[in-house]
Amino acid sequence: MMYSYSGPLAKLINEFTKMPGIGPKSAQRLAFYILSIDKESVKDLLEAIDQVKKNIKFCSRCFNISLNDLCDVCANTARETDKICVVAESKDLIAMERTNLYKGTYHVLGGVISPINGIGPEALRVAELMRRLQKEEISEIIFAFNPNVEGEATILYLSSLIKPLNIKVSRIAYGLPVGSDMDYADENTLSKSFEGRINL
Amino acid sequence: MMYSYSGPLAKLINEFTKMPGIGPKSAQRLAFYILSIDKESVKDLLEAIDQVKKNIKFCSRCFNISLNDLCDVCANTARETDKICVVAESKDLIAMERTNLYKGTYHVLGGVISPINGIGPEALRVAELMRRLQKEEISEIIFAFNPNVEGEATILYLSSLIKPLNIKVSRIAYGLPVGSDMDYADENTLSKSFEGRINL
Repeated sequence: MMYSYSGPLAKLINEFTKMPGIGPKSAQRLAFYILSIDKESVKDLLEAIDQVKKNIKFCSRCFNISLNDLCDVCANTARETDKICVVAESKDLIAMERTNLYKGTYHVLGGVISPINGIGPEALRVAELMRRLQKEEISEIIFAFNPNVEGEATILYLSSLIKPLNIKVSRIAYGLPVGSDMDYADENTLSKSFEGRINL
Repeated sequence: MMYSYSGPLAKLINEFTKMPGIGPKSAQRLAFYILSIDKESVKDLLEAIDQVKKNIKFCSRCFNISLNDLCDVCANTARETDKICVVAESKDLIAMERTNLYKGTYHVLGGVISPINGIGPEALRVAELMRRLQKEEISEIIFAFNPNVEGEATILYLSSLIKPLNIKVSRIAYGLPVGSDMDYADENTLSKSFEGRINL
Protein backbone atom coordinates (compact mmCIF):
# COMPACT_ATOMS: atom_id res chain seq x y z
CA MET A 1 0.00 0.00 0.00
CA MET A 2 1.40 3.38 -1.02
CA TYR A 3 0.52 5.82 1.69
CA SER A 4 -0.03 9.47 0.88
CA TYR A 5 -1.86 12.50 2.22
CA SER A 6 -5.52 11.99 2.83
CA GLY A 7 -8.17 14.09 1.03
CA PRO A 8 -8.42 17.44 2.80
CA LEU A 9 -4.70 17.70 3.55
CA ALA A 10 -3.77 16.86 -0.06
CA LYS A 11 -6.19 19.54 -1.22
CA LEU A 12 -4.74 22.16 1.11
CA ILE A 13 -1.17 21.27 0.09
CA ASN A 14 -2.28 21.71 -3.51
CA GLU A 15 -3.75 25.15 -2.73
CA PHE A 16 -0.51 26.25 -1.09
CA THR A 17 1.53 24.97 -4.06
CA LYS A 18 -0.29 27.51 -6.24
CA MET A 19 1.26 30.36 -4.24
CA PRO A 20 4.38 32.08 -5.55
CA GLY A 21 7.66 30.67 -4.24
CA ILE A 22 5.93 27.77 -2.49
CA GLY A 23 7.18 24.35 -3.62
CA PRO A 24 5.76 20.96 -2.60
CA LYS A 25 7.89 20.76 0.58
CA SER A 26 6.96 24.26 1.76
CA ALA A 27 3.31 23.60 0.95
CA GLN A 28 3.43 20.45 3.10
CA ARG A 29 5.03 22.39 5.95
CA LEU A 30 2.37 25.12 5.69
CA ALA A 31 -0.45 22.55 5.69
CA PHE A 32 0.97 20.95 8.83
CA TYR A 33 1.23 24.42 10.34
CA ILE A 34 -2.48 24.94 9.67
CA LEU A 35 -3.17 21.57 11.29
CA SER A 36 -1.15 22.49 14.36
CA ILE A 37 -2.56 25.93 15.19
CA ASP A 38 -5.63 26.44 17.38
CA LYS A 39 -9.07 27.54 16.19
CA GLU A 40 -8.51 31.16 17.16
CA SER A 41 -5.34 31.42 15.06
CA VAL A 42 -7.07 29.88 12.06
CA LYS A 43 -9.90 32.39 12.45
CA ASP A 44 -7.38 35.25 12.51
CA LEU A 45 -5.82 34.00 9.28
CA LEU A 46 -9.12 33.47 7.47
CA GLU A 47 -10.36 36.85 8.68
CA ALA A 48 -7.18 38.59 7.46
CA ILE A 49 -7.56 37.03 3.99
CA ASP A 50 -11.23 37.99 3.91
CA GLN A 51 -10.58 41.59 4.97
CA VAL A 52 -7.94 42.04 2.30
CA LYS A 53 -10.27 40.78 -0.41
CA LYS A 54 -13.19 42.86 0.88
CA ASN A 55 -11.52 46.18 1.66
CA ILE A 56 -8.56 46.63 -0.64
CA LYS A 57 -9.33 48.09 -4.03
CA PHE A 58 -7.29 49.93 -6.64
CA CYS A 59 -6.83 53.70 -6.74
CA SER A 60 -9.03 55.08 -9.51
CA ARG A 61 -6.20 57.30 -10.71
CA CYS A 62 -2.89 55.39 -10.34
CA PHE A 63 -4.11 51.83 -9.62
CA ASN A 64 -2.09 51.56 -6.44
CA ILE A 65 -3.75 49.38 -3.79
CA SER A 66 -5.99 51.51 -1.65
CA LEU A 67 -8.71 51.47 0.98
CA ASN A 68 -10.46 54.42 -0.68
CA ASP A 69 -11.24 55.67 -4.18
CA LEU A 70 -7.92 57.56 -4.21
CA CYS A 71 -4.80 55.98 -2.64
CA ASP A 72 -2.78 57.71 0.09
CA VAL A 73 -0.34 59.15 -2.46
CA CYS A 74 -2.98 60.50 -4.84
CA ALA A 75 -5.07 61.88 -1.98
CA ASN A 76 -2.04 63.76 -0.61
CA THR A 77 -2.29 67.36 -1.89
CA ALA A 78 1.38 68.00 -1.05
CA ARG A 79 2.60 65.65 -3.80
CA GLU A 80 3.95 67.07 -7.06
CA THR A 81 1.20 66.16 -9.52
CA ASP A 82 3.26 66.97 -12.64
CA LYS A 83 5.48 63.91 -12.18
CA ILE A 84 4.50 60.26 -12.65
CA CYS A 85 6.73 57.40 -11.60
CA VAL A 86 5.61 54.32 -13.56
CA VAL A 87 6.02 51.02 -11.65
CA ALA A 88 5.00 47.44 -12.36
CA GLU A 89 3.35 46.64 -9.02
CA SER A 90 2.19 48.36 -5.83
CA LYS A 91 5.04 46.75 -3.94
CA ASP A 92 7.53 48.62 -6.15
CA LEU A 93 5.69 51.84 -5.31
CA ILE A 94 6.07 51.04 -1.64
CA ALA A 95 9.79 50.36 -2.15
CA MET A 96 10.17 53.76 -3.83
CA GLU A 97 8.25 55.48 -1.03
CA ARG A 98 10.63 54.01 1.51
CA THR A 99 13.43 56.11 0.02
CA ASN A 100 11.46 59.20 1.04
CA LEU A 101 13.00 60.97 -1.97
CA TYR A 102 10.33 61.10 -4.62
CA LYS A 103 7.45 63.53 -4.10
CA GLY A 104 5.47 63.02 -7.31
CA THR A 105 2.64 60.62 -8.13
CA TYR A 106 2.71 57.05 -9.48
CA HIS A 107 1.13 54.85 -12.09
CA VAL A 108 0.94 51.12 -11.36
CA LEU A 109 1.04 49.25 -14.68
CA GLY A 110 0.01 45.89 -13.26
CA GLY A 111 3.08 44.11 -14.64
CA VAL A 112 5.63 44.48 -17.42
CA ILE A 113 5.64 43.52 -21.07
CA SER A 114 6.70 39.89 -21.35
CA PRO A 115 6.18 38.15 -24.71
CA ILE A 116 7.34 34.83 -23.24
CA ASN A 117 4.50 34.94 -20.71
CA GLY A 118 2.06 36.32 -23.29
CA ILE A 119 1.82 39.70 -21.57
CA GLY A 120 1.50 42.52 -24.09
CA PRO A 121 0.73 46.23 -23.54
CA GLU A 122 -3.01 45.56 -23.77
CA ALA A 123 -2.80 43.40 -20.61
CA LEU A 124 -1.27 46.33 -18.71
CA ARG A 125 -2.64 49.74 -17.72
CA VAL A 126 -0.96 51.49 -20.64
CA ALA A 127 -4.14 53.03 -22.09
CA GLU A 128 -4.94 54.38 -18.62
CA LEU A 129 -1.49 55.95 -18.42
CA MET A 130 -1.88 57.59 -21.83
CA ARG A 131 -5.27 58.98 -20.79
CA ARG A 132 -3.64 60.53 -17.70
CA LEU A 133 -1.02 62.19 -19.91
CA GLN A 134 -3.82 63.85 -21.87
CA LYS A 135 -5.95 64.88 -18.90
CA GLU A 136 -3.28 65.83 -16.33
CA GLU A 137 -0.45 68.31 -16.85
CA ILE A 138 2.59 66.03 -16.71
CA SER A 139 6.13 67.31 -17.20
CA GLU A 140 8.16 64.22 -16.28
CA ILE A 141 7.81 60.45 -16.40
CA ILE A 142 10.23 58.22 -14.44
CA PHE A 143 10.28 54.48 -15.10
CA ALA A 144 11.10 52.34 -12.06
CA PHE A 145 11.06 48.70 -13.16
CA ASN A 146 13.18 45.74 -12.11
CA PRO A 147 16.41 45.84 -14.14
CA ASN A 148 15.82 42.94 -16.54
CA VAL A 149 14.81 42.21 -20.14
CA GLU A 150 11.08 42.66 -19.49
CA GLY A 151 11.64 45.95 -17.69
CA GLU A 152 13.80 47.18 -20.57
CA ALA A 153 11.19 46.13 -23.14
CA THR A 154 8.47 47.96 -21.21
CA ILE A 155 10.61 51.12 -21.00
CA LEU A 156 11.35 50.94 -24.74
CA TYR A 157 7.69 50.54 -25.61
CA LEU A 158 6.37 53.24 -23.27
CA SER A 159 9.15 55.69 -24.26
CA SER A 160 8.15 55.37 -27.90
CA LEU A 161 4.60 56.37 -26.94
CA ILE A 162 5.46 59.18 -24.53
CA LYS A 163 8.49 60.91 -26.06
CA PRO A 164 6.47 62.38 -28.98
CA LEU A 165 4.30 64.16 -26.39
CA ASN A 166 7.29 66.32 -25.38
CA ILE A 167 7.38 64.96 -21.85
CA LYS A 168 10.73 64.41 -20.10
CA VAL A 169 11.33 60.66 -19.76
CA SER A 170 13.88 58.90 -17.52
CA ARG A 171 14.53 55.61 -15.81
CA ILE A 172 16.10 54.90 -12.40
CA ALA A 173 19.81 54.02 -12.56
CA TYR A 174 21.25 50.52 -12.75
CA GLY A 175 24.61 49.99 -11.08
CA LEU A 176 26.48 48.70 -8.08
CA PRO A 177 24.31 48.30 -4.98
CA VAL A 178 25.52 50.56 -2.16
CA GLY A 179 27.82 48.63 0.17
CA SER A 180 28.53 45.91 -2.38
CA ASP A 181 31.92 44.73 -3.60
CA MET A 182 32.95 45.58 -7.20
CA ASP A 183 34.92 42.38 -7.30
CA TYR A 184 31.74 40.33 -6.78
CA ALA A 185 29.48 42.28 -9.14
CA ASP A 186 28.30 40.40 -12.24
CA GLU A 187 29.42 41.70 -15.62
CA ASN A 188 26.00 43.04 -16.58
CA THR A 189 25.69 45.12 -13.45
CA LEU A 190 29.21 46.45 -13.81
CA SER A 191 28.59 47.24 -17.50
CA LYS A 192 25.43 49.15 -16.62
CA SER A 193 27.32 50.87 -13.83
CA PHE A 194 30.05 51.97 -16.25
CA GLU A 195 27.59 53.11 -18.92
CA GLY A 196 25.69 55.13 -16.34
CA ARG A 197 28.79 56.83 -14.90
CA ILE A 198 28.19 60.27 -13.41
CA ASN A 199 30.27 63.31 -14.36
CA LEU A 200 31.96 64.90 -11.34
CA MET B 1 5.38 60.87 4.74
CA MET B 2 6.59 57.34 5.29
CA TYR B 3 4.37 55.06 3.24
CA SER B 4 3.70 51.52 4.34
CA TYR B 5 1.09 48.80 3.92
CA SER B 6 -2.42 49.83 4.79
CA GLY B 7 -4.39 48.06 7.57
CA PRO B 8 -5.79 44.83 6.12
CA LEU B 9 -2.72 44.09 3.97
CA ALA B 10 -0.35 44.69 6.89
CA LYS B 11 -2.46 42.34 9.00
CA LEU B 12 -2.41 39.60 6.35
CA ILE B 13 1.35 39.96 5.87
CA ASN B 14 1.69 39.59 9.63
CA GLU B 15 -0.42 36.40 9.58
CA PHE B 16 1.75 34.91 6.84
CA THR B 17 4.93 35.82 8.73
CA LYS B 18 3.78 33.49 11.53
CA MET B 19 4.03 30.52 9.16
CA PRO B 20 7.15 28.34 9.20
CA GLY B 21 9.80 29.33 6.68
CA ILE B 22 7.94 32.49 5.64
CA GLY B 23 9.99 35.67 6.09
CA PRO B 24 8.77 39.25 5.63
CA LYS B 25 9.49 39.25 1.87
CA SER B 26 7.69 35.94 1.24
CA ALA B 27 4.78 37.08 3.40
CA GLN B 28 4.48 40.23 1.29
CA ARG B 29 4.55 38.16 -1.90
CA LEU B 30 1.85 35.82 -0.55
CA ALA B 31 -0.35 38.76 0.48
CA PHE B 32 -0.07 40.23 -3.02
CA TYR B 33 -0.91 36.80 -4.40
CA ILE B 34 -4.10 36.77 -2.32
CA LEU B 35 -4.88 40.25 -3.63
CA SER B 36 -4.38 39.15 -7.21
CA ILE B 37 -6.46 35.96 -7.33
CA ASP B 38 -10.17 35.93 -8.12
CA LYS B 39 -13.00 35.29 -5.66
CA GLU B 40 -13.35 31.65 -6.67
CA SER B 41 -9.69 30.89 -5.98
CA VAL B 42 -9.87 32.56 -2.56
CA LYS B 43 -12.95 30.51 -1.76
CA ASP B 44 -11.08 27.31 -2.71
CA LEU B 45 -8.21 28.24 -0.38
CA LEU B 46 -10.44 29.18 2.57
CA GLU B 47 -12.50 26.04 2.02
CA ALA B 48 -9.37 23.84 1.95
CA ILE B 49 -8.15 25.33 5.25
CA ASP B 50 -11.57 24.91 6.78
CA GLN B 51 -11.91 21.28 5.66
CA VAL B 52 -8.50 20.38 7.09
CA LYS B 53 -9.40 21.88 10.46
CA LYS B 54 -12.85 20.27 10.47
CA ASN B 55 -12.09 16.78 9.19
CA ILE B 56 -8.55 15.86 10.14
CA LYS B 57 -8.12 14.42 13.58
CA PHE B 58 -5.52 12.24 15.23
CA CYS B 59 -5.58 8.44 15.23
CA SER B 60 -6.68 7.29 18.68
CA ARG B 61 -3.93 4.67 18.75
CA CYS B 62 -0.81 6.10 17.07
CA PHE B 63 -1.71 9.83 16.78
CA ASN B 64 -1.08 9.89 13.06
CA ILE B 65 -3.30 12.39 11.22
CA SER B 66 -6.50 10.64 10.18
CA LEU B 67 -9.99 11.13 8.82
CA ASN B 68 -11.33 8.41 11.10
CA ASP B 69 -10.85 7.17 14.65
CA LEU B 70 -8.08 4.85 13.43
CA CYS B 71 -5.62 6.02 10.76
CA ASP B 72 -5.09 4.12 7.49
CA VAL B 73 -2.08 2.29 8.91
CA CYS B 74 -3.73 1.23 12.17
CA ALA B 75 -6.95 0.25 10.38
CA ASN B 76 -4.99 -1.97 7.98
CA THR B 77 -5.21 -5.54 9.34
CA ALA B 78 -2.31 -6.67 7.16
CA ARG B 79 0.21 -4.60 9.18
CA GLU B 80 2.51 -6.30 11.70
CA THR B 81 1.10 -5.10 15.00
CA ASP B 82 4.06 -6.29 17.09
CA LYS B 83 6.35 -3.54 15.71
CA ILE B 84 6.15 0.18 16.44
CA CYS B 85 8.16 2.75 14.53
CA VAL B 86 8.32 5.89 16.67
CA VAL B 87 8.42 9.15 14.68
CA ALA B 88 8.27 12.83 15.63
CA GLU B 89 5.59 13.95 13.19
CA SER B 90 3.05 12.51 10.76
CA LYS B 91 5.12 13.78 7.85
CA ASP B 92 7.98 11.51 8.96
CA LEU B 93 5.54 8.59 8.99
CA ILE B 94 4.56 9.45 5.45
CA ALA B 95 8.25 9.61 4.45
CA MET B 96 8.76 6.11 5.95
CA GLU B 97 5.68 4.76 4.17
CA ARG B 98 7.08 5.99 0.85
CA THR B 99 9.93 3.48 1.19
CA ASN B 100 7.31 0.71 1.10
CA LEU B 101 9.63 -1.34 3.31
CA TYR B 102 8.21 -1.19 6.80
CA LYS B 103 5.04 -3.18 7.51
CA GLY B 104 4.56 -2.51 11.23
CA THR B 105 2.64 0.23 13.01
CA TYR B 106 3.72 3.71 14.12
CA HIS B 107 3.61 6.03 17.09
CA VAL B 108 3.67 9.78 16.40
CA LEU B 109 5.32 11.52 19.37
CA GLY B 110 4.28 15.03 18.38
CA GLY B 111 7.86 16.31 18.40
CA VAL B 112 11.22 15.53 19.98
CA ILE B 113 12.77 16.36 23.32
CA SER B 114 14.35 19.80 23.08
CA PRO B 115 15.39 21.47 26.33
CA ILE B 116 16.35 24.66 24.43
CA ASN B 117 12.77 25.01 23.22
CA GLY B 118 11.35 23.91 26.56
CA ILE B 119 10.00 20.62 25.17
CA GLY B 120 10.31 17.81 27.69
CA PRO B 121 8.87 14.25 27.59
CA GLU B 122 5.64 15.44 29.22
CA ALA B 123 4.92 17.64 26.18
CA LEU B 124 5.18 14.59 23.91
CA ARG B 125 3.06 11.43 23.62
CA VAL B 126 5.49 9.37 25.69
CA ALA B 127 2.94 8.25 28.30
CA GLU B 128 0.67 7.13 25.45
CA LEU B 129 3.54 5.09 23.97
CA MET B 130 4.29 3.42 27.30
CA ARG B 131 0.60 2.54 27.71
CA ARG B 132 0.66 0.89 24.27
CA LEU B 133 3.68 -1.19 25.31
CA GLN B 134 1.67 -2.50 28.24
CA LYS B 135 -1.57 -3.14 26.36
CA GLU B 136 -0.27 -4.38 23.00
CA GLU B 137 2.16 -7.22 22.43
CA ILE B 138 5.17 -5.37 21.07
CA SER B 139 8.42 -7.15 20.17
CA GLU B 140 10.33 -4.34 18.45
CA ILE B 141 10.58 -0.57 18.62
CA ILE B 142 12.34 1.37 15.81
CA PHE B 143 13.17 5.03 16.30
CA ALA B 144 13.03 7.14 13.13
CA PHE B 145 13.93 10.71 14.05
CA ASN B 146 15.85 13.39 12.19
CA PRO B 147 19.57 12.79 12.82
CA ASN B 148 20.35 15.67 15.17
CA VAL B 149 20.94 16.41 18.86
CA GLU B 150 17.23 16.51 19.73
CA GLY B 151 16.58 13.22 17.94
CA GLU B 152 19.50 11.61 19.78
CA ALA B 153 18.27 12.93 23.15
CA THR B 154 14.79 11.55 22.47
CA ILE B 155 16.21 8.14 21.51
CA LEU B 156 18.37 8.08 24.66
CA TYR B 157 15.43 8.97 26.88
CA LEU B 158 12.95 6.53 25.33
CA SER B 159 15.52 3.71 25.20
CA SER B 160 16.07 4.04 28.94
CA LEU B 161 12.32 3.57 29.47
CA ILE B 162 11.79 0.75 26.98
CA LYS B 163 14.91 -1.43 27.26
CA PRO B 164 14.01 -2.70 30.76
CA LEU B 165 10.78 -4.08 29.25
CA ASN B 166 12.81 -6.59 27.21
CA ILE B 167 11.70 -5.15 23.91
CA LYS B 168 14.14 -5.00 20.98
CA VAL B 169 15.06 -1.38 20.34
CA SER B 170 16.76 0.08 17.25
CA ARG B 171 17.13 3.30 15.33
CA ILE B 172 17.35 3.89 11.57
CA ALA B 173 20.92 4.24 10.26
CA TYR B 174 22.79 7.50 9.80
CA GLY B 175 25.31 7.65 6.97
CA LEU B 176 26.03 8.75 3.44
CA PRO B 177 22.90 9.53 1.43
CA VAL B 178 22.59 7.21 -1.57
CA GLY B 179 24.03 8.87 -4.67
CA SER B 180 26.08 11.37 -2.66
CA ASP B 181 29.80 12.04 -2.84
CA MET B 182 32.03 10.94 0.09
CA ASP B 183 34.30 13.82 -0.68
CA TYR B 184 31.51 16.31 0.01
CA ALA B 185 30.08 14.63 3.12
CA ASP B 186 30.45 16.58 6.37
CA GLU B 187 32.61 15.02 9.12
CA ASN B 188 29.66 14.15 11.34
CA THR B 189 27.89 12.23 8.63
CA LEU B 190 31.05 10.41 7.64
CA SER B 191 31.81 9.60 11.29
CA LYS B 192 28.31 8.18 11.76
CA SER B 193 28.73 6.30 8.51
CA PHE B 194 32.00 4.76 9.69
CA GLU B 195 30.65 3.89 13.15
CA GLY B 196 27.64 2.22 11.56
CA ARG B 197 29.69 0.15 9.10
CA ILE B 198 28.09 -3.12 8.06
CA ASN B 199 29.92 -6.45 8.25
CA LEU B 200 30.10 -8.18 4.87
